[in-house]
Amino acid sequence: MASKESNRTFIPSWYEEPPKPGSYRSIFKWGDPEGFKHPNKRLFSLMKKEFNLGDDYFKEPKTLGQEEVRFTDTPVELEESHIRTITGIVGEENVSTRDYDRLKYSSGKTMEEILELRKGIIREVTDLVVHPRNKQEVGKIVEYCNNFKIPVYVYGGGSTVNFGYRPALGGITLVLSTHMNKVVRINEVNKTCTVEAGIWGPAYEEVLNNSRERFSTKHNYTCGHFPQSFEYSTVGGWIVTWGSGQNSSYFGDACDLVIAMEWITPAGSFKTHEYPATATGPRLLDIMKGSEGAFGILVEATLKIFYYQPRNRFPFSYIFPTWEEGLKAVREISQGEFGFPGVFRLSDPEETGVALKLYGVEGTPLDTAMKIGGFKPGKRCLFLGTTEGERGFARNVKRKVAGICFRNHGMTLTGYPARKWEHGRFTDPYMREDLDDYGIMLDTLETAVTWENLPRVHEEVRKYIKSRPKTVCMAHASHFYPQGTNLYFIYFCQMDDPEEYIKFQSGVFDAILRGGGSLSHHHGVGRMIAPWMEEHLGKEQMAALKALKKHFDPNNIMNPGGQLGLDFKPEELPGRNWRIDWKKHFGRG
Amino acid sequence: MASKESNRTFIPSWYEEPPKPGSYRSIFKWGDPEGFKHPNKRLFSLMKKEFNLGDDYFKEPKTLGQEEVRFTDTPVELEESHIRTITGIVGEENVSTRDYDRLKYSSGKTMEEILELRKGIIREVTDLVVHPRNKQEVGKIVEYCNNFKIPVYVYGGGSTVNFGYRPALGGITLVLSTHMNKVVRINEVNKTCTVEAGIWGPAYEEVLNNSRERFSTKHNYTCGHFPQSFEYSTVGGWIVTWGSGQNSSYFGDACDLVIAMEWITPAGSFKTHEYPATATGPRLLDIMKGSEGAFGILVEATLKIFYYQPRNRFPFSYIFPTWEEGLKAVREISQGEFGFPGVFRLSDPEETGVALKLYGVEGTPLDTAMKIGGFKPGKRCLFLGTTEGERGFARNVKRKVAGICFRNHGMTLTGYPARKWEHGRFTDPYMREDLDDYGIMLDTLETAVTWENLPRVHEEVRKYIKSRPKTVCMAHASHFYPQGTNLYFIYFCQMDDPEEYIKFQSGVFDAILRGGGSLSHHHGVGRMIAPWMEEHLGKEQMAALKALKKHFDPNNIMNPGGQLGLDFKPEELPGRNWRIDWKKHFGRG
Repeated sequence: MASKESNRTFIPSWYEEPPKPGSYRSIFKWGDPEGFKHPNKRLFSLMKKEFNLGDDYFKEPKTLGQEEVRFTDTPVELEESHIRTITGIVGEENVSTRDYDRLKYSSGKTMEEILELRKGIIREVTDLVVHPRNKQEVGKIVEYCNNFKIPVYVYGGGSTVNFGYRPALGGITLVLSTHMNKVVRINEVNKTCTVEAGIWGPAYEEVLNNSRERFSTKHNYTCGHFPQSFEYSTVGGWIVTWGSGQNSSYFGDACDLVIAMEWITPAGSFKTHEYPATATGPRLLDIMKGSEGAFGILVEATLKIFYYQPRNRFPFSYIFPTWEEGLKAVREISQGEFGFPGVFRLSDPEETGVALKLYGVEGTPLDTAMKIGGFKPGKRCLFLGTTEGERGFARNVKRKVAGICFRNHGMTLTGYPARKWEHGRFTDPYMREDLDDYGIMLDTLETAVTWENLPRVHEEVRKYIKSRPKTVCMAHASHFYPQGTNLYFIYFCQMDDPEEYIKFQSGVFDAILRGGGSLSHHHGVGRMIAPWMEEHLGKEQMAALKALKKHFDPNNIMNPGGQLGLDFKPEELPGRNWRIDWKKHFGRG
Repeated sequence: MASKESNRTFIPSWYEEPPKPGSYRSIFKWGDPEGFKHPNKRLFSLMKKEFNLGDDYFKEPKTLGQEEVRFTDTPVELEESHIRTITGIVGEENVSTRDYDRLKYSSGKTMEEILELRKGIIREVTDLVVHPRNKQEVGKIVEYCNNFKIPVYVYGGGSTVNFGYRPALGGITLVLSTHMNKVVRINEVNKTCTVEAGIWGPAYEEVLNNSRERFSTKHNYTCGHFPQSFEYSTVGGWIVTWGSGQNSSYFGDACDLVIAMEWITPAGSFKTHEYPATATGPRLLDIMKGSEGAFGILVEATLKIFYYQPRNRFPFSYIFPTWEEGLKAVREISQGEFGFPGVFRLSDPEETGVALKLYGVEGTPLDTAMKIGGFKPGKRCLFLGTTEGERGFARNVKRKVAGICFRNHGMTLTGYPARKWEHGRFTDPYMREDLDDYGIMLDTLETAVTWENLPRVHEEVRKYIKSRPKTVCMAHASHFYPQGTNLYFIYFCQMDDPEEYIKFQSGVFDAILRGGGSLSHHHGVGRMIAPWMEEHLGKEQMAALKALKKHFDPNNIMNPGGQLGLDFKPEELPGRNWRIDWKKHFGRG
């Protein structure tokens, strides 16, 4: 390891030990325990420069969270008789009251909780972890819990970034991904696939990609949904949070893919029909989308599937002189009525700077070409994408994209940056661990915008984030529609105090609302965003959602404690700090 | 006029007098009072043959309904003080208690009521017809009516075919199309148009087609929604009934076109945001779709618009040897991932027979080509369509369609039948008057199907309809999705007794359910289909819709009397005959 700051070859010895079994780190670390992706040299230099840090700062990690999980002040409060009954339903081997399991299945990947877990701070944990084997067991459990008013939380893949299932009132947590993770049926006539809600992204895609062999179908298929959390999320999670994948511009958002669903709620179970359209009143299929566990439990879903035809994926990349010209081009593409590319991303100038480092474009002949072409760092914007669909369709999309980019002063960078981006699409989150190890916080927030208010949202949010000295704020648009897109903000700075972070993050939400953006484009609401919901939607719309909540879950046992803001009592609205004492709130503790 | 049956040139002297002002005929006649479209010679021959009728039968029309509307047994029951207050809100010239107006704005185009109106049979009529001038007036009226529990019905274009606003409890009817029919704003950046809900289809399209001139936009636009009722329906009606236009396969159904809506309900008013997507819980935008006036009143909507580029509309037509081969081809097209044609129709063998007569293909060289090619009447199926969208996209669609049709043994008929179909697309309903004049009933019912259950639904419904002797039953699929399509049944026979018709039609619904179809693909539910809703959706889904009804409309003033089946009392479920005494039902008369 180098010791002098001036030594240009210094690289921190990024931590590479797998998390200790039973440790906090094993809960908060992203992805594969043995998986790592370290910032490259250029990115490391950028951080030192932005945060005004020397090599010395990176000599020793600050917190690692390798301590063993153990707690004494949060005993299991669920009555023994309930535990016995539920154990009777799912079997001895499918329940746990171990401290570690209770914490693991109460935790997601929200920045705030990662900061806390690194310090061993524990908030609400579930009383009993339950791994149901099938939907019949889920039905029995919901009925039982409703009778005895026991809170029920659902854990899918565990990648929530907004406290989507934090067990504020204790109770039980159902883990759907342990057993309820099978493909039920591929229906090649209807071009659909029915799955249990707990199926993991990669398992689902693997079956579809190989369905000729597995199911003797005529074609192989793809699911079309690839969020960054793909490897650590479940199909049910995609749907109940209105998820959106990185190829959504062509395939649609998660909820566009769903044809039918089966739900278990305290008010009864039902399965919606599989018609591709129907005019029989408001559709329960739609009403349940995005309900985030607050109405009931999604146990099965039938989704559209698509032909697996990677040979029609033509990658492309362009550089634009300015953000404005880039925006003009992507809007023209989105409104061109020739279909959409799958992947479709425009980075703002600050993100472009980082991306060119991250994807190894800096220092290549492409870099030289940009310099010669007069595309200035700090102004220029990277645009990349990939086509999907039938070959003639894909070719036409590529041709039209090229024409529109050219007319808006874009220069092709070949398919190279797009391929490099694709290569790292699921592994970038691993870098967050390295940064966190050294007290550097990296988080993201995303918002939906119309074309009209996009510039204002971008400006408001950047203005706020950049008002904090030494903070990097990158943004891209990555989910396109004729009427608008999203803005995805990634910000990082030296920060490891959760309290400081909550305050800072609250300001981002305020800035989004000031600009006129939606509170969430595809991460959902959870408890984190809930306090802003009423201001955002208005009390009339919130009242309708609350009426549905009351109908499906009259005893408030489904994911209670602030989810979607549906069970705030008006007189106790928690305001900007969602950290209220929920047990006290509901007079239960 | 010819007098001998054997005289091959006999043509009935189809009735061509415009309806008398104030007559029943002026209420039930389709479309333009001066507009007519008569069955051509070949179609007339077919009817005589099918129904075993001679020329003599067609010498004199049976009923014409030219009598003046006047009734004494249905007095205005609304209290004078309420009439005064409402008059104070909208102005003297915008209310009416005239018999004629009360009946006109209580009537739609349901077959059953046409049969009745021809005979002067009157059922429920509204007490007061009100033409509000703007959404503020609608707000005041809804608030007032909610306070005094006065039923409120909404009349848009008047083309409902399932009693969508029959004023079962009297009260008032708001006519939105009289004044609330303006374009509010074209937003070219977002590619949207905001309209008042009462705007008529042609007025909306006309503004969009000429927006360069009218609004100084860069492009001219089209709305993309062309139901057969286009000329006599409103944008609000399209949305609240889940309408679908004849070009829906490319543009989407009416509800796919809506980006944002403004609603007035007894529980408050709200406007949804215009984001193209958002992950902030279940969307009110979706929850209100298809609510058919039972939750509140849609006063404004923001819709997607599309470039007006008729030069990219390439028409095509093919003939297939069999229904099975035709279905295979259209499924392959729908699942081909190269986009969709706009118009896209496959007729079954019986409809193909009629269509070839109606569109003048019989006796042309195309007819000869079909004969030479061995495409047998009674087996062969007509497929036609038109492309939409950007030119390269449209060309690719046309090319792919051609290849798929060829592989499935289809033979091109050139664009001729498609153009002929397009020419008559809005005028075919005029023929119903001619048939009705001679006691021949023609009606339609449509259902959504998956590819998998399509053949069974087609078979069950045909089996039932054809079990009645001398009945023509045609069917086509005309709204396509990767996962399925619709079946649109058109049946006609000699029948003019409404009671007989109700029984016959009830059997069609039973057959649809037996086959596994949806109760409606795009006509909505109204009171007519409502009695089948609970069986179709199940009590859990109906309970959720009822909970929403109760939330938005606790006093049941919004379109009460069976709409969507939401206010049936379980103990009084009307069963297959929806004709219950609603005033008695609610203890109000």
